[in-house]
Amino acid sequence: MVMQEILSAVDAELFGVWFLIGAALVFWMQAGFAMVETGFTRAKNSGNIIMKNLMDFCIGTVMFVLIGFSFLLGEDLLGFIGKPGFDIFTAYKDFDFSSFVFNLVFCATTATIVSGAMAERTKFLSYCVYSAVISALIYPIEAHWIWGGGWLAQLGFHDFAGSCCIHMVGGISALIGAKILGPRIGKFEKDANGKVIKVNAFPGHNIPLGALGVFILWFGWYGFNGAAATTIEDLGSIFLTTTVAPAVATVTCMIFTWIRYGKPDVSMCLNASLAGLVGITAPCDVTDAFGATMIGIVSGLLVVFGVWLLDYKLHVDDPVGAVAVHMMNGIWGTIAVGLFATSSAPGYAIALEGGSIKGEGLFYGGGFTQLGLQLLGFVSVAAWAVVCMVIVFTVIKATIGLRASKEEEIRGLDIMEHGLSSAYAGFEFGGMDFVDGDVDVIGSESMEASVPALVKTSDAGDGKKITKVEILMKQERFERFKKAMNDIGVTGMTVTQVLGCGTQKGAPEYYRGVPMDIQLLPKTQVEMVISSVPVMDVINATRKALYTGHIGDGKIFVYDVEDVVKVRTGESGYDALQGEDD
Amino acid sequence: MVMQEILSAVDAELFGVWFLIGAALVFWMQAGFAMVETGFTRAKNSGNIIMKNLMDFCIGTVMFVLIGFSFLLGEDLLGFIGKPGFDIFTAYKDFDFSSFVFNLVFCATTATIVSGAMAERTKFLSYCVYSAVISALIYPIEAHWIWGGGWLAQLGFHDFAGSCCIHMVGGISALIGAKILGPRIGKFEKDANGKVIKVNAFPGHNIPLGALGVFILWFGWYGFNGAAATTIEDLGSIFLTTTVAPAVATVTCMIFTWIRYGKPDVSMCLNASLAGLVGITAPCDVTDAFGATMIGIVSGLLVVFGVWLLDYKLHVDDPVGAVAVHMMNGIWGTIAVGLFATSSAPGYAIALEGGSIKGEGLFYGGGFTQLGLQLLGFVSVAAWAVVCMVIVFTVIKATIGLRASKEEEIRGLDIMEHGLSSAYAGFEFGGMDFVDGDVDVIGSESMEASVPALVKTSDAGDGKKITKVEILMKQERFERFKKAMNDIGVTGMTVTQVLGCGTQKGAPEYYRGVPMDIQLLPKTQVEMVISSVPVMDVINATRKALYTGHIGDGKIFVYDVEDVVKVRTGESGYDALQGEDD
Amino acid sequence: MVMQEILSAVDAELFGVWFLIGAALVFWMQAGFAMVETGFTRAKNSGNIIMKNLMDFCIGTVMFVLIGFSFLLGEDLLGFIGKPGFDIFTAYKDFDFSSFVFNLVFCATTATIVSGAMAERTKFLSYCVYSAVISALIYPIEAHWIWGGGWLAQLGFHDFAGSCCIHMVGGISALIGAKILGPRIGKFEKDANGKVIKVNAFPGHNIPLGALGVFILWFGWYGFNGAAATTIEDLGSIFLTTTVAPAVATVTCMIFTWIRYGKPDVSMCLNASLAGLVGITAPCDVTDAFGATMIGIVSGLLVVFGVWLLDYKLHVDDPVGAVAVHMMNGIWGTIAVGLFATSSAPGYAIALEGGSIKGEGLFYGGGFTQLGLQLLGFVSVAAWAVVCMVIVFTVIKATIGLRASKEEEIRGLDIMEHGLSSAYAGFEFGGMDFVDGDVDVIGSESMEASVPALVKTSDAGDGKKITKVEILMKQERFERFKKAMNDIGVTGMTVTQVLGCGTQKGAPEYYRGVPMDIQLLPKTQVEMVISSVPVMDVINATRKALYTGHIGDGKIFVYDVEDVVKVRTGESGYDALQGEDD
Repeated sequence: MVMQEILSAVDAELFGVWFLIGAALVFWMQAGFAMVETGFTRAKNSGNIIMKNLMDFCIGTVMFVLIGFSFLLGEDLLGFIGKPGFDIFTAYKDFDFSSFVFNLVFCATTATIVSGAMAERTKFLSYCVYSAVISALIYPIEAHWIWGGGWLAQLGFHDFAGSCCIHMVGGISALIGAKILGPRIGKFEKDANGKVIKVNAFPGHNIPLGALGVFILWFGWYGFNGAAATTIEDLGSIFLTTTVAPAVATVTCMIFTWIRYGKPDVSMCLNASLAGLVGITAPCDVTDAFGATMIGIVSGLLVVFGVWLLDYKLHVDDPVGAVAVHMMNGIWGTIAVGLFATSSAPGYAIALEGGSIKGEGLFYGGGFTQLGLQLLGFVSVAAWAVVCMVIVFTVIKATIGLRASKEEEIRGLDIMEHGLSSAYAGFEFGGMDFVDGDVDVIGSESMEASVPALVKTSDAGDGKKITKVEILMKQERFERFKKAMNDIGVTGMTVTQVLGCGTQKGAPEYYRGVPMDIQLLPKTQVEMVISSVPVMDVINATRKALYTGHIGDGKIFVYDVEDVVKVRTGESGYDALQGEDD
Repeated sequence: MVMQEILSAVDAELFGVWFLIGAALVFWMQAGFAMVETGFTRAKNSGNIIMKNLMDFCIGTVMFVLIGFSFLLGEDLLGFIGKPGFDIFTAYKDFDFSSFVFNLVFCATTATIVSGAMAERTKFLSYCVYSAVISALIYPIEAHWIWGGGWLAQLGFHDFAGSCCIHMVGGISALIGAKILGPRIGKFEKDANGKVIKVNAFPGHNIPLGALGVFILWFGWYGFNGAAATTIEDLGSIFLTTTVAPAVATVTCMIFTWIRYGKPDVSMCLNASLAGLVGITAPCDVTDAFGATMIGIVSGLLVVFGVWLLDYKLHVDDPVGAVAVHMMNGIWGTIAVGLFATSSAPGYAIALEGGSIKGEGLFYGGGFTQLGLQLLGFVSVAAWAVVCMVIVFTVIKATIGLRASKEEEIRGLDIMEHGLSSAYAGFEFGGMDFVDGDVDVIGSESMEASVPALVKTSDAGDGKKITKVEILMKQERFERFKKAMNDIGVTGMTVTQVLGCGTQKGAPEYYRGVPMDIQLLPKTQVEMVISSVPVMDVINATRKALYTGHIGDGKIFVYDVEDVVKVRTGESGYDALQGEDD
Repeated sequence: MVMQEILSAVDAELFGVWFLIGAALVFWMQAGFAMVETGFTRAKNSGNIIMKNLMDFCIGTVMFVLIGFSFLLGEDLLGFIGKPGFDIFTAYKDFDFSSFVFNLVFCATTATIVSGAMAERTKFLSYCVYSAVISALIYPIEAHWIWGGGWLAQLGFHDFAGSCCIHMVGGISALIGAKILGPRIGKFEKDANGKVIKVNAFPGHNIPLGALGVFILWFGWYGFNGAAATTIEDLGSIFLTTTVAPAVATVTCMIFTWIRYGKPDVSMCLNASLAGLVGITAPCDVTDAFGATMIGIVSGLLVVFGVWLLDYKLHVDDPVGAVAVHMMNGIWGTIAVGLFATSSAPGYAIALEGGSIKGEGLFYGGGFTQLGLQLLGFVSVAAWAVVCMVIVFTVIKATIGLRASKEEEIRGLDIMEHGLSSAYAGFEFGGMDFVDGDVDVIGSESMEASVPALVKTSDAGDGKKITKVEILMKQERFERFKKAMNDIGVTGMTVTQVLGCGTQKGAPEYYRGVPMDIQLLPKTQVEMVISSVPVMDVINATRKALYTGHIGDGKIFVYDVEDVVKVRTGESGYDALQGEDD
């Protein structure tokens, strides 16, 4: 008896610490969402999607401090809402710190699901407003119903870790947001009557990063599903179901896409892992290995169906599959409790005692009692989410506007919303930095004097003949070269990163002990079309800028150009090359 | 006495929770393997390697549920194998959930080691089959010997966290798989007699991602080595040895490669960290700081030797160094127990009581007893792995085939096996999306009408003269432009991402508060060679498509072309430009 | 009473295990630093920055084993330093394993802060020396003052998790290092008098990776700040403050940069999260939600100010903002204890009992006592850090040199310091591998014979006419082509990755169930300028190398070239094309 008392005090501490570790793991899932959404969208919006994910958490925290937490866990008012209050500031000493942190990270998850479905075309300011409202109001209230002692909790609705109150709500918000927002430019091709005749795929720009995000999410999910466990058996069983369901879902999806599309689809399988995780979230503590397997099989198919449904039937553009993963499997997980709950699972007895479940699932002989409760919960929470989100997005659209402009969308939200010219600056040019400033580089001082004079004399530019000069050079000489060209009056040039084929001289470099043959060296190729500046001036200035006296200084090619036209003015020939740069 | 009893009950709970946290950390190592293997191989196979790593875990889970777990931990049959059973389905209430999850994640680690060594050329289906077999059969049986109460466990063989039963077995499978599979095309150059005369390096395409994978693995290894600890001192000591060994191995490798190859090799040092971790895995609980240091030094050298051995002596192509890291250091760690086990380590007494060790190591005065046991274990498990894997891979090769076709290998497994045209879609073009569909973009409607007419009249294409038209344009106008060209009958074009040099106008963008000079703007360069379509039609259509009236609308260059030859038909001139696109 | 005793024994175990989990999380922060620093710098130095971060930990471990740990936690000598010793080797049985691991990972954090500020221009060897010295000597001594029972600990200076002893010291070292080292080439433009007239931004090459690093750090920070907690309330409150401060800091920074620079700055907001985390580190256990909010607001502004100050006033080049984040917010966090410490926080009583705090903060009515102590601590530790680091960097500079050469900096430290030609090998060319060796590829054997003969006869190269041959081909044929060109004497060529526009034939590929229109296929474009080799030979050899008989075999274009000049020798025309490759 005393031992029991002690052990229960110990358990409170032990699972209290684990509760916080779990919360930290759920925080970590923010990184997973950020990576999945970045990886599965286009590079030009990478910075923006990162920012939205970061801000979901940060704005959400501010809102949760101000009001959300008390709406969720304040004294119950009529089963609908918690009593607002500022205990976090006024009564810090007795505040439930752990519960605050735990509920905050779950709240932030709900908010962040939406960013993926609305990616690549939502105005940043509007997204911030949406994010604030869901964290302050919409999530806390419905979560109060389920987890805060509200009416669904009182009835015995079971949603252990949030298939319904987090994933389904996030997914519904995603669907409504994406629908009101409209598809990305080019996603659906329509005929003259506005009927969609073709669906285009926009492949993600960084699948490895997206895959890393999926692994992060799966890892974090052990905290997400497990954090609220209170016995070691319960936790063990939760870990088991949380492993089996996504694994089975992924295998199912692989086999299905292999058969259906001829090849196993990588990004769909990654989505399937998440689908299985979402599906098992509500019943993770009250079902067994068989239930987890069945739930996984359905999830693995549901995600493929969901993606197809949105693309081909609803014509809603969801870049990362958030609706298929979170909404559809959130609903499935909520219902699955009513099908697969079993007293064999260690969490069942705990849930029964706590009143958060009323009976076993249909397939375990429990009849329709729990299934009915689950359907009631699903319908009510879904209705709440639909009504709220339609209002929120409609109001935003009517006031500050929801969608980025066409130009912003086409040029990318990174540059337009954040002034970030690229999230991968200089990447496509091998990390080459074309910077201004100090161009006084390697050994140039002593070499310049010794550039041997050219034999040909300078032919005067007559303003008639148009010539293209193409130069192949070392990357590191470009800045110096550009300055030299500006000095003689050549301003327009086109720069390409190329590989120059030659023979590597000198000491070899080793990669893991194997000498590297670098026969193709990165080079910079510059093209300039000139008319008024004499070609020989360009050649001489180029030689002076590039000369070091070592092999690899580059070559200059001269071509005849028939004509040039400036698009804006229509001027051709010499005139097209004058004035402001086009 | 009562206190002791209570504390031991508490310990069971506390280390039970930690056991599951450790298991989650080991799951997380799957992400590490995926990132290491992706980063250290080529971009064209990124999606495939991700998929293999994901499927190792998912297929492995299915197999482990079906049969693997009971082979491993079922009732011991003659010391060789566990009794098969379906307790996970039939007796869920009394099932050991934690043990299942823990053993599953370890099993998946064994399977996933192989994917790195067989990367970039293995047929996906065949890999799935291999993965199923190792998880269902090969790993569970040998792990039963060591961890499931089998004959090696009974003798006192010590392999705390799996240098032998996980890493060595995974590494041996990797070696056999890579050997039977053969090297990647171009890895080894041979003379007429088939003698290798040159070894080529294929550098990894994303070292930062690979490095992240190493950090993930190291982090996860605290769970891998620590999960089974049962006292706080034991756990502390395991963390210490698990930190010292890889750190020392990495420093050793850095110094060695610096001396040997002239420069400290980045990817080899990353491998060395893993080598040290593998080496310390078996003895982590029974050795001390000195032992960990010695083990680390040897591991740091062994990995360099191993990579060299495979490249230059065995001519086995192991893209990520899996054999050097896991097999060689797995063997080393197994033997190291017999050299460095000491009663100073808190885990020693626990192991002695549990019967999993018989004496101290050779260098600590323990003589040859334990060393002999370790050698026995190494040899028997290695023999099992060799025999099984030779059979498995030979059967796969003879039936469904093991290796991707030459074309699949050269074009990349992503496109060929998964229909993924690139794991980095649009990346090399700055995330530019060249999509079909809505081309009705920014401000184009109102502008079109105002394009000033060109002065020159259209010269009819006479089918003799061949002209190259080169256009420099804004990326976002490309889709519109392409449509315009198709409308006038020009279908073939070459598109390059270039930087256009001009002067930035308008409000500056800020990066971290510093205004950005973007003098080099990303532009799209299109080249078309035409003959039958009149040049003026191309120019006029281009102007109409690109015209906005703002600076930066682009330029059109016209060049004379001497000749064109179509490779397939040998047609030249006008004829080469007709018909289907080549 | 007995129960109390038992619970306290249990707590020791429970928080002992958590202490180690926390240490593992702090280790994980190394990955965060590596990713932040890699992502926020340029691609050409990625391998180097990874290596520095890896070596910080590994060299630091060796140093900490040898001497650092005993300087920090050995028997106190005069309040200044711990007594050196080798207990880790000589008395392993009674060694405090957990404390060693915990303190080691904190020490490594201090060291690694510096690498970001000194990135892209520091000699690798010199960095290793610096890293060894700070881990062996500088950090352990000042940390002894605060955490090892030294004079500051005795006075009641409070720095719970290291705003002062880790972040401020790391940040000061970063400032001094970056100052002595000088800015990266091109960062600051100067007029003739050496006055800075322009500051240039060098945007990071991989913002998603940098963002991932920030998420890793934030996640790890729950371990960093929480590891030393000893009650569940204390830990809960620490998690709360560690969440609120960075979230508020990030929101503050977003709003501020939005107003100040017109757009919310992505990378600055990511820095702001870290700034808030650094700021809350010292007071995390003794302040409340209000304190955390205030600290966050200041941190969010301070980081923007700090970046501006270094760029525009101090002209110190800190590529990743390490000084603004760690030094400035480290100081702020240290002082904040004296302003916001409150007895409402559960950690306050613990700190008071342990003597690590003397009174509440100024804003909570505690007067100036604690604030004075905090200022004293800040000033003394800062003085120590300044003196030591000036000596260390000056000595390194005077002996082995601190800075990489201009050429190393411009070409990148990856190739120059580590022989790594690119951390993203083949990336810009779609993962294309241009390798030597086996060129005997797909179906080529049977096809060759059937290449139809060309009709035109070969025109002899007369050494006068210069011709450019441009070939568009499949990537996988390049190697074969190159060999064919070498065989007929053409060695110089320029290779570009382009997109060829055509119509996709055959079975479609699916991406997530949507058929892909790949109208733009990646192609390789090769340009060669020839004079002595007859054009027809080039055309015939090219056709033979590229011919498969299928659509897509490519085209050959021939252009007239007016002139060629070799930069190094000044030779033009035919002569420019002879001899060694330039």
